[in-house]
Amino acid sequence: MAPRTSHSLPGLSVRRDGSRAVTRSLPEEWPVALVYDGSTQAVMMASPADLEDFALGFSLSEGVIETPDQVEGFELVTHDTGSEARFWLAPERRSALQQRRRSMIGPVGCGLCGIDSLEQALRPLPRVVCDLRLEQRELAQATDALRAHQPLHDQTRATHAAGFLLPGAGIVLAREDVGRHNALDKLIGALMRAGIDPATGAIVMTSRLSVELVQKCAMVGCGVLIAVSAPTAHAVRLAEGAGITLAAFAHSGAFDLYSHPDRIQTGASDVA
Amino acid sequence: MAPRTSHSLPGLSVRRDGSRAVTRSLPEEWPVALVYDGSTQAVMMASPADLEDFALGFSLSEGVIETPDQVEGFELVTHDTGSEARFWLAPERRSALQQRRRSMIGPVGCGLCGIDSLEQALRPLPRVVCDLRLEQRELAQATDALRAHQPLHDQTRATHAAGFLLPGAGIVLAREDVGRHNALDKLIGALMRAGIDPATGAIVMTSRLSVELVQKCAMVGCGVLIAVSAPTAHAVRLAEGAGITLAAFAHSGAFDLYSHPDRIQTGASDVA
Repeated sequence: MAPRTSHSLPGLSVRRDGSRAVTRSLPEEWPVALVYDGSTQAVMMASPADLEDFALGFSLSEGVIETPDQVEGFELVTHDTGSEARFWLAPERRSALQQRRRSMIGPVGCGLCGIDSLEQALRPLPRVVCDLRLEQRELAQATDALRAHQPLHDQTRATHAAGFLLPGAGIVLAREDVGRHNALDKLIGALMRAGIDPATGAIVMTSRLSVELVQKCAMVGCGVLIAVSAPTAHAVRLAEGAGITLAAFAHSGAFDLYSHPDRIQTGASDVA
Repeated sequence: MAPRTSHSLPGLSVRRDGSRAVTRSLPEEWPVALVYDGSTQAVMMASPADLEDFALGFSLSEGVIETPDQVEGFELVTHDTGSEARFWLAPERRSALQQRRRSMIGPVGCGLCGIDSLEQALRPLPRVVCDLRLEQRELAQATDALRAHQPLHDQTRATHAAGFLLPGAGIVLAREDVGRHNALDKLIGALMRAGIDPATGAIVMTSRLSVELVQKCAMVGCGVLIAVSAPTAHAVRLAEGAGITLAAFAHSGAFDLYSHPDRIQTGASDVA
């Protein structure tokens, strides 16, 4: 059985006027191994909830599989030391992955030289094509609306969330994790398992926007990425190239647009 | 030449009462390949400053090398696509690393099965032995003091910092990065290059405390880790086992202690 997503732990609260014993609800971090046909691709530290969503979302957003039907078998196994998400892939995908592994970089030094590995890290992204339109008002309320879907954050004040904003319907799905990349992967997996096309709405993050979040959105064809905090300059360039609308500093009814603003109906068009 | 650490980019600021063009200072993210004897170990997205510190700190905190003198040669090469930190290691360390690579997990599936890779992710940590003592007042002011060493954050409001608090001297060294793990690695490298033993002070972070930050501190023998935000439950257990004092929610003159509180002189002992 996987551990709980938060634990009450004892601490000593120290203030100017004295110290007292306290109990705080802290988020758990749990190792999850992503294993394809018996070989580990990655071990991620994640909040131990929605791990089936996480495993599927990671597989898609990192390009291990292209579509969910390339998975022939799946098993989530919980050990004392962590969880294993075991995939068995369709034969043609298995050979493609083996081919890719032979030519891919890795944190453990699989042999690529520096220049090749830098190019691999910035692999070309598919260009998102989607005809989504979002009203200014919906976007401006997106991160506030997401707050209602963060029970783990309410307990711990220390986890991120990713939500899916469907035009006219608000946040229809959300997932939480100690890591913002994991939260996004969980959301992507949950969308796929619910049969919702990521191109039909916007992804809303409680975090900053880094290169990896833009890469993951592009991989699953989502055209609008909204975050409460800042984007990096590199993330903006990547979103511009991948056809993704980037909205940042989205809170208190306002936001900034940094790329492809045409998907957002602002100002006069609201009145029309 | 590596790019600047921040860029002024155009955006469209959208508010209820209208939209206007704005220019925002956004942090850069830059790929850095860590290359040992011609083979890439990792590509990290980092703020392009203090990359020599980063490369050395990463090598130590991730256990690629045990001491700086195992580096026989170093070169930082900047390409259009990113930077390469090229190391040449002492022959005995090179063979140890090759041995380790053969038995280590990796995000690109170097062959380990799931259970082995979970154990690898939670490798046993060295136990920190240090006789550091820190006064309550110094700890309580640590994260506020770090704020004075965050010029990139002042510009962009979107980067993390790691600082080194020396008892009686305040924050003597600090480094910034878009990523909190990178900021810590930069600080560790800077400490080593300045000849400062991490056991002589406390590491102060602007972030939450996750397993990986505790692991990095243990690897370089620092006994006190202070953060402005929450720890994970797993990070607390790890710090307990590794002999590290964990102080979290450290701001506004107060903090919580979660492990090894004996290093902090609180309450009555302040008066003595």
